[in-house]
Amino acid sequence: MNIGRFAQNLVDSIADAGEKFIDLKMFRGSSTQFLLQLCTDLISHKGVASGLALAREVVNRYSVLSMAEKLTFLMEVNKKMGPNLEEIKVVATKYVKEPSEGNLEKLTQNIQSCRRKLFSRMIMAPNGTQAIVSLREDLLGFLQTNPELRAMDNDLKTLLTSWFNPGFLILKKIDWDTEASILEKIIEYEAVHDIGNWNDLKKRLMADRRCFAYFHPSLEDEPLIFVEVALTKGITGSIQSIISEDSNINDEGNTAIFYSINNCQRGLRKIPLGNFLIKTVVKEIASELPAIKKYSTLSPIPGFAVWLLNELSKQNSEFISEKEREILKIVNEKNWHADTKKCKRLKKPLVKACANYLLNVKKFEKPINSVAKFHFGNGAQLYRINWMGNTSAHGISESFGLMVNYLYDLKQIESNHEAYVQDGTLAISKTIRSVLK
Amino acid sequence: MNIGRFAQNLVDSIADAGEKFIDLKMFRGSSTQFLLQLCTDLISHKGVASGLALAREVVNRYSVLSMAEKLTFLMEVNKKMGPNLEEIKVVATKYVKEPSEGNLEKLTQNIQSCRRKLFSRMIMAPNGTQAIVSLREDLLGFLQTNPELRAMDNDLKTLLTSWFNPGFLILKKIDWDTEASILEKIIEYEAVHDIGNWNDLKKRLMADRRCFAYFHPSLEDEPLIFVEVALTKGITGSIQSIISEDSNINDEGNTAIFYSINNCQRGLRKIPLGNFLIKTVVKEIASELPAIKKYSTLSPIPGFAVWLLNELSKQNSEFISEKEREILKIVNEKNWHADTKKCKRLKKPLVKACANYLLNVKKFEKPINSVAKFHFGNGAQLYRINWMGNTSAHGISESFGLMVNYLYDLKQIESNHEAYVQDGTLAISKTIRSVLK
Amino acid sequence: MNIGRFAQNLVDSIADAGEKFIDLKMFRGSSTQFLLQLCTDLISHKGVASGLALAREVVNRYSVLSMAEKLTFLMEVNKKMGPNLEEIKVVATKYVKEPSEGNLEKLTQNIQSCRRKLFSRMIMAPNGTQAIVSLREDLLGFLQTNPELRAMDNDLKTLLTSWFNPGFLILKKIDWDTEASILEKIIEYEAVHDIGNWNDLKKRLMADRRCFAYFHPSLEDEPLIFVEVALTKGITGSIQSIISEDSNINDEGNTAIFYSINNCQRGLRKIPLGNFLIKTVVKEIASELPAIKKYSTLSPIPGFAVWLLNELSKQNSEFISEKEREILKIVNEKNWHADTKKCKRLKKPLVKACANYLLNVKKFEKPINSVAKFHFGNGAQLYRINWMGNTSAHGISESFGLMVNYLYDLKQIESNHEAYVQDGTLAISKTIRSVLK
Amino acid sequence: MNIGRFAQNLVDSIADAGEKFIDLKMFRGSSTQFLLQLCTDLISHKGVASGLALAREVVNRYSVLSMAEKLTFLMEVNKKMGPNLEEIKVVATKYVKEPSEGNLEKLTQNIQSCRRKLFSRMIMAPNGTQAIVSLREDLLGFLQTNPELRAMDNDLKTLLTSWFNPGFLILKKIDWDTEASILEKIIEYEAVHDIGNWNDLKKRLMADRRCFAYFHPSLEDEPLIFVEVALTKGITGSIQSIISEDSNINDEGNTAIFYSINNCQRGLRKIPLGNFLIKTVVKEIASELPAIKKYSTLSPIPGFAVWLLNELSKQNSEFISEKEREILKIVNEKNWHADTKKCKRLKKPLVKACANYLLNVKKFEKPINSVAKFHFGNGAQLYRINWMGNTSAHGISESFGLMVNYLYDLKQIESNHEAYVQDGTLAISKTIRSVLK
Repeated sequence: MNIGRFAQNLVDSIADAGEKFIDLKMFRGSSTQFLLQLCTDLISHKGVASGLALAREVVNRYSVLSMAEKLTFLMEVNKKMGPNLEEIKVVATKYVKEPSEGNLEKLTQNIQSCRRKLFSRMIMAPNGTQAIVSLREDLLGFLQTNPELRAMDNDLKTLLTSWFNPGFLILKKIDWDTEASILEKIIEYEAVHDIGNWNDLKKRLMADRRCFAYFHPSLEDEPLIFVEVALTKGITGSIQSIISEDSNINDEGNTAIFYSINNCQRGLRKIPLGNFLIKTVVKEIASELPAIKKYSTLSPIPGFAVWLLNELSKQNSEFISEKEREILKIVNEKNWHADTKKCKRLKKPLVKACANYLLNVKKFEKPINSVAKFHFGNGAQLYRINWMGNTSAHGISESFGLMVNYLYDLKQIESNHEAYVQDGTLAISKTIRSVLK
Repeated sequence: MNIGRFAQNLVDSIADAGEKFIDLKMFRGSSTQFLLQLCTDLISHKGVASGLALAREVVNRYSVLSMAEKLTFLMEVNKKMGPNLEEIKVVATKYVKEPSEGNLEKLTQNIQSCRRKLFSRMIMAPNGTQAIVSLREDLLGFLQTNPELRAMDNDLKTLLTSWFNPGFLILKKIDWDTEASILEKIIEYEAVHDIGNWNDLKKRLMADRRCFAYFHPSLEDEPLIFVEVALTKGITGSIQSIISEDSNINDEGNTAIFYSINNCQRGLRKIPLGNFLIKTVVKEIASELPAIKKYSTLSPIPGFAVWLLNELSKQNSEFISEKEREILKIVNEKNWHADTKKCKRLKKPLVKACANYLLNVKKFEKPINSVAKFHFGNGAQLYRINWMGNTSAHGISESFGLMVNYLYDLKQIESNHEAYVQDGTLAISKTIRSVLK
Repeated sequence: MNIGRFAQNLVDSIADAGEKFIDLKMFRGSSTQFLLQLCTDLISHKGVASGLALAREVVNRYSVLSMAEKLTFLMEVNKKMGPNLEEIKVVATKYVKEPSEGNLEKLTQNIQSCRRKLFSRMIMAPNGTQAIVSLREDLLGFLQTNPELRAMDNDLKTLLTSWFNPGFLILKKIDWDTEASILEKIIEYEAVHDIGNWNDLKKRLMADRRCFAYFHPSLEDEPLIFVEVALTKGITGSIQSIISEDSNINDEGNTAIFYSINNCQRGLRKIPLGNFLIKTVVKEIASELPAIKKYSTLSPIPGFAVWLLNELSKQNSEFISEKEREILKIVNEKNWHADTKKCKRLKKPLVKACANYLLNVKKFEKPINSVAKFHFGNGAQLYRINWMGNTSAHGISESFGLMVNYLYDLKQIESNHEAYVQDGTLAISKTIRSVLK
Repeated sequence: MNIGRFAQNLVDSIADAGEKFIDLKMFRGSSTQFLLQLCTDLISHKGVASGLALAREVVNRYSVLSMAEKLTFLMEVNKKMGPNLEEIKVVATKYVKEPSEGNLEKLTQNIQSCRRKLFSRMIMAPNGTQAIVSLREDLLGFLQTNPELRAMDNDLKTLLTSWFNPGFLILKKIDWDTEASILEKIIEYEAVHDIGNWNDLKKRLMADRRCFAYFHPSLEDEPLIFVEVALTKGITGSIQSIISEDSNINDEGNTAIFYSINNCQRGLRKIPLGNFLIKTVVKEIASELPAIKKYSTLSPIPGFAVWLLNELSKQNSEFISEKEREILKIVNEKNWHADTKKCKRLKKPLVKACANYLLNVKKFEKPINSVAKFHFGNGAQLYRINWMGNTSAHGISESFGLMVNYLYDLKQIESNHEAYVQDGTLAISKTIRSVLK
C-alpha cells in the first residue's frame, strides 16, 4: 500500500470516529437543503474531528446529487455563503474614513467569503482534492447559463491556484512499466490524437518515444497534464509518420517532437500547469539523451478552417488578396485534397493564409489561436507550416491538413519569451518570413 | 534518486536556463537594495522561466544576508510591497457607494498585497518551500521588536495555512529502518525529553515504542511534527520509567503513552499541524496493535513552578488557602524533594494547586497552560497528576516534579471536544475531581 | 530505475570492459564451432572480468543461433563437456579400493561435468538467468528426439532447482496498479482460460478478484507462476459465472475460488515452484479478508474425454459397467449437450465415470490426471464434480463440460497431505463418496 | 513493509500451519538428539508444508544450542548424514565395470550426501538463509580442532557458492539517506579502519565520499561486503588525511581512493563476493562523476612487520642485504618513528623491504600478503609504498607505518589480470621499479 493511500485510509478512519457525533436525524428537508445545512455546520463548526466527518459527509452527498440538484445547491452556496455586502460596506466605510493597516486587516477578514472556508474544509475530506476538482468541473459547466456563479468560481480558482502551486507538482515518466491504472487514464485523456487501444498506447511508449506527466501529491493516480514526444531524425512535419505507421525505433533520432499535449482535469481549467511542462521535459530529455539537439512541437491549428471559410465569405478581407481568395475558394470543393492539381494551386496561398491567421489575427493583442498563444508565450518560435501535415478527416476539416512546428530553441527561448511579454513580438523563422512575403 | 529530488533538480535546471536572461549587472547598490530590486522584478515580471531564475536568485541571496540585513530587507518589503492604502481607499469608496459583487471583486483584487505575490513566486524556486519556512522563522524572531511586521506575517500565515493544508500532509512511521538523515533530525528536534545520542534514539524506536511524523510533499526530508509513544502496562505516571531506564520490551503492553510531541519547524508556528496527529496515530496503533486499549499522554506542565512561586509571593491567592500556602512554601527550600518528610507534607496541596493551575487559571477563557489547552482542545480528559513524575533537575524546577496524564478515551473524545468548544467545559477524571475537593 | 536494472547495467559495463581483452579474431569456423570455442574458453578461463565478457558473448551468440544450430551446439556441449567416463573410472577404481572420505571428495570433484561449470558461468552474464531459462526451454524441446541430451538436462535441472530455491522467490499481488509490462505477460501466459484483451484482464483484477504471482529476484519482470482467484458466495461450480459474465463485485463473498494456475516459464518445467503458491495465497487472503472462510479451486479435467472415449471403445472397462456404457455412448452424438433429455440421462453415469477417472486411473500409483495429482499432493480434497461447469466448446470437448472443485480445508490440508504421501490415500468429500456408490 | 519481509511473514504463516501436524511429543532425549531426529525427519519427509514447519523448528532449535551442543550436533550430522561409503562403493564398482552415462548418473545420485539435502531444506525456513550463514560461521570456528568437519564444510561451500552466485547480488549505494539499521551494521562490520560513532560514520558518507555494498535478495538488510571510497585530489598516500582530519569536501577531486574493503559475513568466508565489487564500483563512480580520472586503493600491509622482524632475526635473508639489516634493526627501538633522524635512515631500506615482501615473498606461487594477492588478482598495479601512510599505533605495529596504493588503471586492468593469471606476472609502476633497484 503506498503512503498516500495509507494516509487516505487514516483520514477515513478519523472521519468514521467523528461521524458518531453528527446527529444526522437533526437534518430535514430535500437533499440539497440537507446538504446546505451540513455545509453551514462545516464552516461554523470549530471542531476538527467532527469537522472531518462533516467534510466527508458533504463531499459524499454532493457527489450523488443529480446535475439539476448540483446547480440548485451551487446557486444556493454562491448566494448564501458569498460575502455579506452590507457588512462589508460598514467595514469599508470605516476604512475609507481612516485608511490604516489595522482597518485594512479588518476589511480583509470581512471580505473573505464563507465559500472559501467551505472549500478549504471540504478538501480535508478523504479524496477531498478530487472532490473539489470535480465540483469545479460541474461549476464550469454551469457558468455560461448562470454567470452569477462566476464569483464562486473566482474563489475556487484562487484556492486551486494556491493548492496546485507549480512547486508542488511532480513530474513522472510514463512508460510501459507504469501502472495500468494510470496508463488507462492516458488513453482516456488523450484528446489531440486518439489512442485507439492498448497496442496503440504501447507503440507510443516505445524506445523512440517519451511521455511525461505532472501529478499532484494529493491526487497521486491522476495525471494533470501530459505530453507525448517522438524522437525523430529532423523536424517532422507529418503527424501520420508519428502515429499511424509502424513505430520505427530510430537510434539516430536527433530531434524531440512534442506531438500531443493534454490537460486531463477539466476542473483545473485556467489553473496554470502547463507553462513549466515543456521546458521541464526538454531539460529531462537533454540530460537523458545527449544526441537530441532540437526540440519542436508538431501542433494542430484548431479554428483555422472556420476562420478561413469565414474570411472567404466576407466581401473584403484584410488578410487575403482577391487573387488568393479566388484560389482559396477551392477548399469549398469536395475532396479537393485528393486532387493533385488543386493541391498544387492551393498550397502557397493556403500556407500564407495560415501564417497570417497564426500571427496577425489577434484578440486582446495576443494570437487568437490558443495553441499559438501558448507556445509563443513559452518562448517558442513559429518554425514551419506543414502542407498535408495531418491527412486524417479531422485534420482536413479542422485546418485543411496543415500542421505547425513551434521550435523550442534553448538559446532563444528566453529572449523570445521576453520580447513576447514586453511588446508582443512573435518569434518567426526565416521560412515563415518568406511565406509572408 | 527519489522523485522529489528528481523534480527539484529539474526545477534547478530550468532556473539555470532562465538565469542567462537576467542581467545581473543592471543591479546596483547594497545587497538588500539589490535584493529588493530583484523582488520587484520577480513580482512584476510576467515570465515563467526567467521568473523561476529570479525566484532562485531571491531565495539564494536572502539566505546569505546577515540578520541585520534580513531585518532591513523584511522591513522594506513590508512597507513597499504592502497594500497601497490610498489606492484601496479609492476602490473602497466606490464599493461603499455601490456595494455590488462587481465592485467587491475589484476591492478584493486591490487588497491583495504584493507581499503575497512575492512569497507565492519565491516558493516556486528550488527548495522554495524550505526558504519560505525559514524566512518566516526569521520574521517571527523580529516581530516582538518590530510589531509593524505583523501585517506581513499575516500574509505569510494565510499562505502557509493553505500550502500546509492537512489534506496534503503525509504520516510516516519513524523506526530504525528510517533514513539516518531523518533520524538525525528527530534527535535534533526533540525538545521535550532530550535524545542524547544514537543509542538513546534506538531505544526510543524499539519494539515497545512507536514514533510517527508528519511530512509535507515539498519538504520531504523534513519532519514537521512528530510524536513518541511508549507501549506500557497501564497508564505510566513516571517519565523516567520510559526514557531513563533500560527499555524493557513489554509484550503485554495494553496502553499507548504519548510522552513527547514536538513541532519541528519554528517557521510554521501557529500553522495548525498537530490537531490531527494524535488522533491519526491513535487510529494507526489501534489497527496495528489490537492489544492496546488505552491511550494517554504523559505531559509536562511548563509554567507551573513560575505561576506557583508567583502565587505564593502574593498577599492573597484565589487558588491557594492560607493553610496550603504555609506548606507550599517548602518548595522554596533547597533540595526539598530529597527530604521524604517535606515531600509527604507537600504532596497533597501541591497536586491540588497544580489541578487548579491547569483547570482554573485562564487566558481568553481557555487554560493558560498551552499543553493543557492543546489536549483539552483535542477532546482529551485531565486524567491524573503524577507526584514525582519527572525527577530530573528540569522536571523539579519546571513543575516541582509533577507530570500529567491526559487521557484520549475514544468513546468520549468527541463529546469532550464538543463540550470544550461549545462552552469551554474541561473534561476531568474522578481522581482529579477528588483532588480538587 | 529500479535496483535490479541498475545492477544489470553495471554487469553490462563490466562486461564491456572485459570485452576489450577478448581477441575475437582468434576464433575461426562456423558459428556453432566459434561458440563452442568461446564456451571452452569461458570454463577454462580463470579470470573474472574477461570471463564476464565471455559469458555475455556466449549468451548473445547462442541467442541468435537458428534452432538447427542450437541443436548442433547443445549436442556438442553435451558430449564434449560431459563427464570424462575414463578419467572417472580411474578415480572410481581408487575409491573402490579404498572407500575413504578423501577418495570420495576426489571422486565428487571429478564427477562434476564441465557443463555445470559452463551454465554456472553463463548465468553471470547480463540477463544470464533469463538466458539459461531460455536455453533449457530449447533443450526440453530437443529431448524427445535426442534422448542423449537428458544427461545435460539433469545438470541444468540440478542447478535451476538450487537457483530457484523457494526461499528466494517473491510473491507479488497483481492488480490494476501493476506495471503494464507485467500485466501484458499475464495476458500472454494465461493458458487455462484465455484473457482476450485488456478489458478482460481488468475484469479479472477487480475488487472481487485477486491475482498473485511468484517472481525471482534475478528475473524481476518475469512472473514464474501465477494464480487467479475469484471471491464468490459459496463454492462456484461454473467457470462461465466467473469469466464470461459481467464481473459482479460481491461484497458478501465468503469463498475464494482458485480458477486458474499458470506456469509461465517453459524453461522451468519440473522445477518445483507451485507447491507453496496456493498455500501462501490462502494465508495472504485469510489475513486480508477475514470474511473469506472457504478455499477451493475450480479446475479443468484435461484428458478425461480422451480417456472416456477410449474406455468406451474397449470391449471391457474396469471402470464402466455395461449399462453405463450404453448411456455414455451418447457423448459420441453431435450436440448432445444441447439436448436436455440426453443430458438428463448422461449426468449421473458421466459424473461417476469422471470420479473414477480422477481417483482410480493411476500411473506410478498416482492419479494419471496431472491437475488431480497436483492438488492431492498439496493436501486438497476432491470436493465436487460440476455438471456443465464449463460450457465452452473447449470445455465440452476436453471433459464433456465437467469441472472439478478441489477443496483446501485449512484444518485437513496437512493430514490429507500426509495420508497422500505416506500411503497414497486420496481425500474425497461425502458428495464424491455418494457419486461412487 | 517491504516485499521481502512480506514474503518472510508468509513463509512464517505457512510454517505455523504445518506445525500443527508435527507431533513434538514424539521426540525424546537430549536437545541435540532431539534436533537430530528433527533433521532426519526433515530430509526424509516428502511433504512441503510440514517440511517448512520442520525446517523452522530445526533452525530455531539449532540457534539456541550452546556452542558445545552445536559442536556435538554438527559432528553427528557430519557423520550420520555424510555419504554412505559402503553403498557408494557398490555403485562405484558397477560403474568401474561398465563406465556408462547411466551408471554415472546413479553414482552421482548416490554420492550426494544427506547433509546437502538437509541444508537445502533448512534454507527454506523463515530467515533460513541467515540461519545457514550462521551455521557455517559456527562450523568454520570448529574446523581447526575438528578437521573431520571439512567434508561437511565442502558441502556447505558448494551450496553457498551456488546460492550467492554473483548474478544474484545487488549493489546498493550507502549514504546518509540509508536506513539506520543498515548503517549500524556498517559501523559494526568496518574492521580495517574503525568507525568510532555515528558522527564518524556521517563524515565517511559526505559529499566527497562514496560507499557501496553488495546485498543478497534473501538477506536484504545484511551487507555482504562493502567498500569505502574517498574522492581526493591526486593519489593520497596517508590514511590519516582521509579518516582522522575534518572531512574537506573537495569539489576538485579527480581520484577515487578505495581505502577500506570489508567482508561482513564470516559465514561466507571463501565464497567469492569481492571480485566484482571494485570494478563495479569503478564503473558506477565513472558514470556518476566524470571528473574522476584515477582509481586507486590505499591499503594496509598486514603481516609485513611480523615478516620483517622474522627476517631480521634470521642469519641470512634472501631479501635483505647486510647493510640494510643494520639500518632496519632500528625498528626494534622504542618510538623510532618519533625520531626524525632514525626515520630518515630507515625510509629507503624499509620501503625496499616492503616492496620485496609484497612482490617476492610467495606461497603457492602467489604473493603471501593477502591484500596484495587480492588486488593483483583483480588486475591492479602496485603503484606506490607510502612512508608514514598510517601513523596510528596499529599502523606502526602492523607495517611500520607503511601503506600501499594499488592502482586500478582501466586501460591496463585486463592485461594485468591476464598476465597475472597466465604466468603470475605482478604489475608494478616505475616508482616501485626504481625502489627495487
